[in-house]
Amino acid sequence: MAGTFVIAQGGGPTAVINQTLAGAALKISRRYPGARVLGALHGVRGVRDGRFVTLSDLSEAELRAIASTPGAALGSTRDKPDAAYCDLILKGLRAVGADAFIYIGGNDTAGTQEILAEASGGRIVCVHAPKTIDNDLVENDHTPGFISAAEFVAGAFLSVDLDFRALPGIYVGIVMGRHAGFLTASAAAWSLDEGGAPHLVYVPERPFERSRFIEDIRATLARHRRCIIAMSEGVSGPDGRSLVETLVPPEMLERDPHGNIRLSGSDLAQAVERILAEDLPGKRARVDTFGYLPRGNVATVNTTDAKEAFEAGAFAVEAVERGGGSVTLQFDGEKTVYGLVPLAAVAGKTRHMPEHFLVPDENRLSDACLSYLARLLPRKYAVARPFV
Amino acid sequence: MAGTFVIAQGGGPTAVINQTLAGAALKISRRYPGARVLGALHGVRGVRDGRFVTLSDLSEAELRAIASTPGAALGSTRDKPDAAYCDLILKGLRAVGADAFIYIGGNDTAGTQEILAEASGGRIVCVHAPKTIDNDLVENDHTPGFISAAEFVAGAFLSVDLDFRALPGIYVGIVMGRHAGFLTASAAAWSLDEGGAPHLVYVPERPFERSRFIEDIRATLARHRRCIIAMSEGVSGPDGRSLVETLVPPEMLERDPHGNIRLSGSDLAQAVERILAEDLPGKRARVDTFGYLPRGNVATVNTTDAKEAFEAGAFAVEAVERGGGSVTLQFDGEKTVYGLVPLAAVAGKTRHMPEHFLVPDENRLSDACLSYLARLLPRKYAVARPFV
Repeated sequence: MAGTFVIAQGGGPTAVINQTLAGAALKISRRYPGARVLGALHGVRGVRDGRFVTLSDLSEAELRAIASTPGAALGSTRDKPDAAYCDLILKGLRAVGADAFIYIGGNDTAGTQEILAEASGGRIVCVHAPKTIDNDLVENDHTPGFISAAEFVAGAFLSVDLDFRALPGIYVGIVMGRHAGFLTASAAAWSLDEGGAPHLVYVPERPFERSRFIEDIRATLARHRRCIIAMSEGVSGPDGRSLVETLVPPEMLERDPHGNIRLSGSDLAQAVERILAEDLPGKRARVDTFGYLPRGNVATVNTTDAKEAFEAGAFAVEAVERGGGSVTLQFDGEKTVYGLVPLAAVAGKTRHMPEHFLVPDENRLSDACLSYLARLLPRKYAVARPFV
Repeated sequence: MAGTFVIAQGGGPTAVINQTLAGAALKISRRYPGARVLGALHGVRGVRDGRFVTLSDLSEAELRAIASTPGAALGSTRDKPDAAYCDLILKGLRAVGADAFIYIGGNDTAGTQEILAEASGGRIVCVHAPKTIDNDLVENDHTPGFISAAEFVAGAFLSVDLDFRALPGIYVGIVMGRHAGFLTASAAAWSLDEGGAPHLVYVPERPFERSRFIEDIRATLARHRRCIIAMSEGVSGPDGRSLVETLVPPEMLERDPHGNIRLSGSDLAQAVERILAEDLPGKRARVDTFGYLPRGNVATVNTTDAKEAFEAGAFAVEAVERGGGSVTLQFDGEKTVYGLVPLAAVAGKTRHMPEHFLVPDENRLSDACLSYLARLLPRKYAVARPFV
């Protein structure tokens, strides 16, 4: 079968999502010479609207140049199609004679593929290829996009640690992660030594408590004269409400058109600054919101991540031959191996940091977590310990 | 003369301030075998308190390892000594028999050296070696520490541009710079193409005006569907008050113990988010505060910056032989050359971005500025243009 393959990218871009695109396109060109490969612009929106680029017209060199560029070359979307929208997507796929549709994205993307697979009655093979900086896809040891983002965060916290040894104070780095603390935890991957940053880690999986936070900081300042903190955007109080909601008066909260609280990194940063100014007056403190900076940074495209993202794309083609599903990355004790699970196993599900990755009753990471991080992100920079 | 040299680091750490330390220490060891080199801990505080490490006991390999590590290995200080404090510093220098004192830092550091040089009656040679990520030392074409920080910022804005082509919206990156817009301007150094980020640049040298800001953004969105903005922490309104002061009710402003407005990146970020939510409702917008991230990041230690910082340190030793002063970096049309000016020429003075670096009546950078940036920061990453 020469056939027609459609590929699209969904959700937030990463440093290596284009590797997955290229891995799939190149594998198709090798296994199915003459096959047509269409890239949909802006995810399923492009499929629905008939907006494609013909990837099979590109040379290998062009595809490899795209592969090593961060961002999502085909554009992306945050659309979460309902049944009606899915009908239009299927129409769009049929209109181009698609035999298979490979959609690269997170758990929402897998959810869209699940709906499409069923609605197409199996006539169009639907494959989900994994991608997320949050590392929160179930069935996966880790996900393409995570390690590069983690490299950024690890490097940033090592750098800030050196900075704050020179000019001590309190530093809070707010890292993306609404539901899972993996990216925030990666702040510890390259910690300089026993007393290295981050000293405290606050993740969505653990309830945040203000007085404990201040106590933790006081204790750290007494020991190290500085305190460097990694905090997820999604931390919430014991009642499950986000930290911002617990700290900001209701009438001052921003809401989106649906009435949902608009949570931004800046809201949380300001709330944290207020807490510190009120409860630890006079202590020098800085709060930075990493925001999108780790997510597709040209300076921290991790080579392992790039390789695995490419191979996941190639495996997606194998997944087509096996009738569809969600491509997974597993660890066999030595290396990453690629597998396939049903779309339903991944769709809409979120993996949280395992309980044993956090030390009981302390806001720091366990050795199990640090070993996991060390495996994915071996130290890259040789750093001399300062005299202070 | 074998002699005794004291070296210290002052102000904010950078990616390459340890290169300057090593450059000086190694030059001394070559020119004055047997000379004692003392590194003061935490700047002049260490001199005052008699807290030193003996750098001349370190091997060349150890010094080079320190050289390539970001942060300030000796520790630093933000102390701005008055006359009484300077007396204590001089006492400290005499107590160790110092013949010369090399202080690596910005314009405040030069100011301290100016006071000390006079107070010592010329008996202790005082040299200022340049350092700042803000690039705001007068008499210098550019300053050690700037290019590495600029590399971070340039890479970040290129990366965000790729990200926002995939998922369009408004992005504001807030970059450090209380008085000078150079670091903010470096966001444009690796702009992808004619329509590349940053689309708008707001610096302290130009009065910020809210309605113009919104107008600028609307026009950009109409052209490019996205709008990426680089903004300095120090932007101020036409009356000279900081942006935060103009936007936040007086009673809500944070003040430090001296009654000065506490300006933080998060305050500005939140103020900007409010403006966007009120004046451009419904438009997806993200505001991130880069904060300290560019300042000594392990992933963006620029090789030119490292080399020049090292050479500036070596030249500081020559400056000792010439009786003291402030080491400068100049551009002779082809390369960087090192010079010496009186401490008074640099002390306490701030260089602002030249007027001609900004396009008249537009919030963007002129070709002159872009050429300057291109000279210091040639493109490092090959990036394929996305399809969107």
